[in-house]
Amino acid sequence: MKHFYSIKDIDNLPELVDSAIALKKQKEISNFGKGKTLVMLFFNGSLRTRLSTQKAAESLDMNVICMNAGDAWKWELEEGVVMDSDKAEHIKEAARVISQYADIIAIRSFPKLANKEEDYADLLFETFMKYSEVPVINLESSILHPCQSFADLITIAEHQTKTKQKIVLSWAPHPKALPQAVANSFLEWIQKTDHEVVITHPPGYELNERFTQGCKITHNQDEALKDADFVYVKNWSALEPYGKVINQDPSWMITKEKMSQTNNAYLMHCLPVRRNVVIADDVLDSDKALIIKQADNRTHAAKAVISQLLKDNY
Amino acid sequence: MKHFYSIKDIDNLPELVDSAIALKKQKEISNFGKGKTLVMLFFNGSLRTRLSTQKAAESLDMNVICMNAGDAWKWELEEGVVMDSDKAEHIKEAARVISQYADIIAIRSFPKLANKEEDYADLLFETFMKYSEVPVINLESSILHPCQSFADLITIAEHQTKTKQKIVLSWAPHPKALPQAVANSFLEWIQKTDHEVVITHPPGYELNERFTQGCKITHNQDEALKDADFVYVKNWSALEPYGKVINQDPSWMITKEKMSQTNNAYLMHCLPVRRNVVIADDVLDSDKALIIKQADNRTHAAKAVISQLLKDNY
Amino acid sequence: MKHFYSIKDIDNLPELVDSAIALKKQKEISNFGKGKTLVMLFFNGSLRTRLSTQKAAESLDMNVICMNAGDAWKWELEEGVVMDSDKAEHIKEAARVISQYADIIAIRSFPKLANKEEDYADLLFETFMKYSEVPVINLESSILHPCQSFADLITIAEHQTKTKQKIVLSWAPHPKALPQAVANSFLEWIQKTDHEVVITHPPGYELNERFTQGCKITHNQDEALKDADFVYVKNWSALEPYGKVINQDPSWMITKEKMSQTNNAYLMHCLPVRRNVVIADDVLDSDKALIIKQADNRTHAAKAVISQLLKDNY
Repeated sequence: MKHFYSIKDIDNLPELVDSAIALKKQKEISNFGKGKTLVMLFFNGSLRTRLSTQKAAESLDMNVICMNAGDAWKWELEEGVVMDSDKAEHIKEAARVISQYADIIAIRSFPKLANKEEDYADLLFETFMKYSEVPVINLESSILHPCQSFADLITIAEHQTKTKQKIVLSWAPHPKALPQAVANSFLEWIQKTDHEVVITHPPGYELNERFTQGCKITHNQDEALKDADFVYVKNWSALEPYGKVINQDPSWMITKEKMSQTNNAYLMHCLPVRRNVVIADDVLDSDKALIIKQADNRTHAAKAVISQLLKDNY
Repeated sequence: MKHFYSIKDIDNLPELVDSAIALKKQKEISNFGKGKTLVMLFFNGSLRTRLSTQKAAESLDMNVICMNAGDAWKWELEEGVVMDSDKAEHIKEAARVISQYADIIAIRSFPKLANKEEDYADLLFETFMKYSEVPVINLESSILHPCQSFADLITIAEHQTKTKQKIVLSWAPHPKALPQAVANSFLEWIQKTDHEVVITHPPGYELNERFTQGCKITHNQDEALKDADFVYVKNWSALEPYGKVINQDPSWMITKEKMSQTNNAYLMHCLPVRRNVVIADDVLDSDKALIIKQADNRTHAAKAVISQLLKDNY
Repeated sequence: MKHFYSIKDIDNLPELVDSAIALKKQKEISNFGKGKTLVMLFFNGSLRTRLSTQKAAESLDMNVICMNAGDAWKWELEEGVVMDSDKAEHIKEAARVISQYADIIAIRSFPKLANKEEDYADLLFETFMKYSEVPVINLESSILHPCQSFADLITIAEHQTKTKQKIVLSWAPHPKALPQAVANSFLEWIQKTDHEVVITHPPGYELNERFTQGCKITHNQDEALKDADFVYVKNWSALEPYGKVINQDPSWMITKEKMSQTNNAYLMHCLPVRRNVVIADDVLDSDKALIIKQADNRTHAAKAVISQLLKDNY
């Protein structure tokens, strides 16, 4: 594994999931990363991602340097530009320079949700990986959140009772325009398993076909939930018009009544979750909610990713 | 000790003070916290608290992850709310999630000084401690600053010449509305010692009775200072009208002349201090000023607290 | 070496450069700084400086605490002031307090570019060093950037083919008003070597005589570049009117054509660089550009500085 950017970087997914579960059980302190440095760059806020990734790296005895980009720190991504705007540094220099201070570089950079083609080109990551001399970890790009998906797959692996279970990805309402990254990545990853995947959302919230290909899609949430074993709930904004909240239909909120249609399904969400808007209190507080375990598995997923990158590149 | 939130968490105060003084003398490097993680969350700025707590934890070989909350990171504290406002995450999730990444969680969150009942309920801490699965350290809440008080008591213990000395807490003027936390906590802690405590402030600056109970209170600063062995100077805003600067009477500034009424008293202040507003230059620069030593003792207090929490919980 | 503030702190420059080159070759992990703490305080943004300094300190097994100052954290620098303005703490207290938490303190504080006398007094550093009880590293003050200059001299030492080479410092256009610190320091440091130094800039961009003394200065960029072995490119704002961009003459941009007048010279720049404004793409992308190596040498320079300070002070 050269970078951890998308599912395409994973040769053997079941093996990677198993390695994370093994690391989770291992209590002794490791010094596998001693003398190595992880640089984390955040162009956007973070709670779980930052804490779990730093914790994972430090549990391998790595040094961690964490920086917030802020407005002052804009990179030019285009080649050949006359740089007389507000962007003080070209990503070419940034990537090559930071590579010299880091053994692994982890980056978070959300979409602007203004221009679909631009966001879906994911240029910051594509260019950074091109110029970086060390492995890059995607801590959520414009369109992908593989660290979350990996943690989600660990959580499912720990709770599934059969090789093939029915897994529903359900859109739910939210007052703000959110990226599609969590949903996109979840679909990329879950489709590499043997599970049955059903996507449900109101008309107009279609996801990019690159990610939904091969999945059953329905606008009927009740039909989707029927006999589900896992319900993954997530809001996302529309692709058309791009990045907009076209409705916040409250009837799509996940309630106890809706969960009663399932096969006593587990509830999943990547967090943060707005209670009683996306999912009702009684569902979130039930013992079928896996949300806290998903968050815990972020650490173990990050530890497996970092270990693999160190092993394959140093 | 389960949490370090207030004096109520301390079983044996003299023992805790002694343990800090012992740690202060100990020069060899400890690895008592190896493999453990301290997560520090700052909803407000910090200089001394952040540096001393991180230094203390790292001197025990802990890993430290420090995050600033900023505006973007607001927690919902109420139960049962429909979360459609600006708060993206409920403290229930936040506390349970962060607990999984940390062995100890330290939090700073100042009062808004807008609503007395709200601030004095100290709901962020009360709720966080309820849901956290690991010990919580109060790095200054709406109403308490126990890390400061512990350092203050160490400093007094190092300088007192008798078991019972006269200790004066004097209000002093300040241009901004400040919390009552330092004064409240100091009273909670100092009253657990054998010292005589006298509070002095202009009419209208009465502190909450929960903290002043049992102390002598006078509006006559000169009378209070007479024969004092230690003078603890601090500004605070009024309780009624809540959070307001009702006057900035410059005659309450601590000067060399005022200190001459004391029993050659030591001067204390938690810092930062506005020179020639709160305390005059010649007092701050005299060899009776303990302010730099108090700041130093923040590290040793933090080290004792962290050590005790690790010992009692792991 | 007590502090690392300017070239004046260096007893033996060739020895220091050699020590950095030796540290660069050394691959084994050092624990020379174990149990010691570096506190870094940033009043301004940083990428290279922050990463390279933290990396250097951690490669010596030091603990690093990094803080951003922001607006909320203003220090009073004047003595005897009534502190009723927006400055909550006097640098006297700040320096003495932080000294107690740190074994080395590294600070970045840019000029305001509003008042030349004020900036060139460099009062924050002068005062902080006066009150600090531990060594201070200048991570770029109002007028000096010695960490950059040290890295630049290492880079030159690694590429020079003769003891005396022709080194040109050329001004180049930039849309924003930048400090003179990099140019000032480079001149301070390079003049301690045997190289020939030529400064070139348009009329009006004269640097402070304190730094240019003894250097050849010309307004004719072509003449300066002739037979140059190294071309150090940098923009700076004017001294008169102070801190202003008096012109952005695009004919001063460094192009391939201009470089063809040199003795196949190496190109240097401290980064970040605005491509096609300061230097053209084809020059930056040529194999004579040392910019990435200069950035790499920041780590080795910082490691040498920290090692020397630890050796001389502990």
